[in-house]
Amino acid sequence: MLRIDLNCDMGESFGIWRLGDDEAVLPYITSANIACGFHAGDPSTMRRTVRMALDRGVAVGAHPGLPDLVGFGRRNLAVTPEEAYDLVVYQVGALAAFVKAEGGRLQHVKPHGALYNMAAKDRALAEAIAEAVYRVDPDLILFGLAGSELVRAGQRTGLRVAAEAFADRTYQADGSLTPRRTPGALILDPEVAAEQVVRLVKEGKVRSLQGPDVAVRADTVCLHGDGERAVEFARAIRARLTAEGITVKAVGAK
Amino acid sequence: MLRIDLNCDMGESFGIWRLGDDEAVLPYITSANIACGFHAGDPSTMRRTVRMALDRGVAVGAHPGLPDLVGFGRRNLAVTPEEAYDLVVYQVGALAAFVKAEGGRLQHVKPHGALYNMAAKDRALAEAIAEAVYRVDPDLILFGLAGSELVRAGQRTGLRVAAEAFADRTYQADGSLTPRRTPGALILDPEVAAEQVVRLVKEGKVRSLQGPDVAVRADTVCLHGDGERAVEFARAIRARLTAEGITVKAVGAK
Amino acid sequence: MLRIDLNCDMGESFGIWRLGDDEAVLPYITSANIACGFHAGDPSTMRRTVRMALDRGVAVGAHPGLPDLVGFGRRNLAVTPEEAYDLVVYQVGALAAFVKAEGGRLQHVKPHGALYNMAAKDRALAEAIAEAVYRVDPDLILFGLAGSELVRAGQRTGLRVAAEAFADRTYQADGSLTPRRTPGALILDPEVAAEQVVRLVKEGKVRSLQGPDVAVRADTVCLHGDGERAVEFARAIRARLTAEGITVKAVGAK
Amino acid sequence: MLRIDLNCDMGESFGIWRLGDDEAVLPYITSANIACGFHAGDPSTMRRTVRMALDRGVAVGAHPGLPDLVGFGRRNLAVTPEEAYDLVVYQVGALAAFVKAEGGRLQHVKPHGALYNMAAKDRALAEAIAEAVYRVDPDLILFGLAGSELVRAGQRTGLRVAAEAFADRTYQADGSLTPRRTPGALILDPEVAAEQVVRLVKEGKVRSLQGPDVAVRADTVCLHGDGERAVEFARAIRARLTAEGITVKAVGAK
Repeated sequence: MLRIDLNCDMGESFGIWRLGDDEAVLPYITSANIACGFHAGDPSTMRRTVRMALDRGVAVGAHPGLPDLVGFGRRNLAVTPEEAYDLVVYQVGALAAFVKAEGGRLQHVKPHGALYNMAAKDRALAEAIAEAVYRVDPDLILFGLAGSELVRAGQRTGLRVAAEAFADRTYQADGSLTPRRTPGALILDPEVAAEQVVRLVKEGKVRSLQGPDVAVRADTVCLHGDGERAVEFARAIRARLTAEGITVKAVGAK
Repeated sequence: MLRIDLNCDMGESFGIWRLGDDEAVLPYITSANIACGFHAGDPSTMRRTVRMALDRGVAVGAHPGLPDLVGFGRRNLAVTPEEAYDLVVYQVGALAAFVKAEGGRLQHVKPHGALYNMAAKDRALAEAIAEAVYRVDPDLILFGLAGSELVRAGQRTGLRVAAEAFADRTYQADGSLTPRRTPGALILDPEVAAEQVVRLVKEGKVRSLQGPDVAVRADTVCLHGDGERAVEFARAIRARLTAEGITVKAVGAK
Repeated sequence: MLRIDLNCDMGESFGIWRLGDDEAVLPYITSANIACGFHAGDPSTMRRTVRMALDRGVAVGAHPGLPDLVGFGRRNLAVTPEEAYDLVVYQVGALAAFVKAEGGRLQHVKPHGALYNMAAKDRALAEAIAEAVYRVDPDLILFGLAGSELVRAGQRTGLRVAAEAFADRTYQADGSLTPRRTPGALILDPEVAAEQVVRLVKEGKVRSLQGPDVAVRADTVCLHGDGERAVEFARAIRARLTAEGITVKAVGAK
Repeated sequence: MLRIDLNCDMGESFGIWRLGDDEAVLPYITSANIACGFHAGDPSTMRRTVRMALDRGVAVGAHPGLPDLVGFGRRNLAVTPEEAYDLVVYQVGALAAFVKAEGGRLQHVKPHGALYNMAAKDRALAEAIAEAVYRVDPDLILFGLAGSELVRAGQRTGLRVAAEAFADRTYQADGSLTPRRTPGALILDPEVAAEQVVRLVKEGKVRSLQGPDVAVRADTVCLHGDGERAVEFARAIRARLTAEGITVKAVGAK
């Protein structure tokens, strides 16, 4: 049976400021990565987002980021592995408390932005993050870029991991993501994104920007929750997966 | 058997800045209230302080405060009960994660500064805080000012509560604490403080600033961790309790 | 010659988060109150907003708030007058630097949210704010609620002041603003708001929520910059003022 | 006439937390670099530190840092040149307002920590910082590491610059500072530091850690304000300079 998880970053509002349309995207996804207050999210937003995800039967994960609210956690910050460990424990704990208070169970952890990207390449950082997750709860699933140091560190640490691919990003012939600023980095047509996801699941490969197919193995696929067309993409991808008979289910679900 | 808990605020350093001499005070106390990042404390300080307390066999509590770092959580902020609920869940969860990661168990929650004082008098706020603690973990013990709304709210919510008295603060004839700015608010002699604690435990009363005795029932006594003479006070009080044959034990200990 | 200033809060985005449609509202106003980083605004948003206002010939003011980003500066915080002085000097200085760097001149200062409301009633706070403005630049104009302690403090300090009224808020028979949560607090029809502004300018009175007219003298009228209908209100009010032959000009303009 | 400026970072306390003993070091220095709230310092600390420096006749400079309070501005953060421009304008403006409010004149700007180090090597960042300083006030003096991109960028921008050397850091044979973690990076004997400063001023060279002399031209020498022996170093260096007949004067003084 073919199966995939669809995840999306959520709860990235802050105080009076709104970002994304979580409510509209939730029906199409199976795992929600909820911001934990460092790059976005505040305690009230966290509670509301956890509640909303649980109400829709969407699995909840923590989405810890760097302490850089004004930069939305997207700017590299030279944290030591120890500092990374500490800020992951802190944020995962905070989110887990809301999940517990709302009667749910935390499924996973997916680092955000620059922390995610740095941990994809930096082994010491990746190990510190994996260790933090493991020590907070060894049953948590660690989400990381397919083929990254973070996925390998999670496996070595003894965590269950989920390799992540992207629905609307193109891949290079070597299997890496096309950098955001490179022309052609983003897929603009929801049907093309849906096709990429279907091939990922069925064949374990995608067509690279250069042309040749490249192998990408993924347990979960990231959709984007903000931008005008977020819902349109989510709907197209989910519909296409259903049409292909692929089961869409949270990674942690039986 | 007479028994009392001695608690102290800890982990109130932030980044490069140090506050208090936690290491020197820990040998004399039985419960540590550890700052959670909003009024003081940062993830690395939290981890180190939790580790230090557990190593000394001191019970660990969360010490959540208002989001006011520059004001050290001492300035009243008009948070709604719902906002108070959210910021307590968040901070208790964050601290609990460090305790879990270090192999310990969280014993209690004691709000800090203005949040503590506001919750002593404001029933709705007190109930929101008690509810937050209960929903994160119903086995947690809630510390609040003896006779306060917070203690009553905790009891109504079904939490175990610990009424708190102060070793180096004087009391008014009506049982309230002398406001900090009133002359005579602070006890400056460690032996006088020790005497106040002993009477609290043995007789359930203290001598008020006005002269007459006043009833104060306490399960735990707060020592101060900063200031030049913190260690001196802690040592004197602990020694005196021992000399009187009073057991000094964390409230949650058997 | 009848004349009025129309002001609007601006630059209240923060990092990735947008608030208000400054660009669309700017054509209708004559004074922009620009957030300074404590309740909203960040250095890059400040620079862009200053540039945009100067390009449209709109006079620029600083809009300092309480250090409460998550609460958007709307929650009362018990700052001392000295702390208020300090945070106003800081924020006015920061905004003034962007104005200078862009080749403009700072016209005014209008406190934001809870700071504005607290300073309307608290004489010591009002005096501290006025003193801060005066010491940064005695030529600045201080905006405060018509009839408030802030306006009086500004006058005593030797500052030029501008009494402020609101276009879309109703007034009580005693001349105070109807509290936001009271039914009928907000005017929902742009034409009714425009009519209120015209009477303010022409007759120095408005019709109170209770019915009778009440005197309100204003040098500047606040429009709101966020909400779906902000532009609609701004356009209607400006058009009506023009139709009535009333000059709309920044308070500091000759 | 031989002459040198002695500068020191100041005002690096935050809220309740103290750092350094500014009052004790001020008598020995001629320029104070005052933190502006991003890596350290808060509005009240800024006002007090400015007042204290002006009272002692010490020239005042702004010491802007990265927005990283918990990391004390010492961790590299991938800010764009435009972001660096914005955060320098903001912080210099804030500090300048306190200087003006206290009746003084801002002399200089010296970036802090990671911003200083990044700007020493990154030309685009250095130019953005220099441009920010120039546009806030073209008469400000820019302090930068001797031989750095920041000094060159300041000169190209048309600013007066001051090349900085360090009293208690050793130099490599190529004229660069010995990295902090390398053994021998710090000079531990106040007399050795004083000797290094005297040679810097008299001969324009220092003895490198490797042995041979290396040319270092400096207009200002940085003393450290924290650490147990800060005052001892400051006193020794100042005394030695006086004994050698070298004039110690702020760079901006006639």
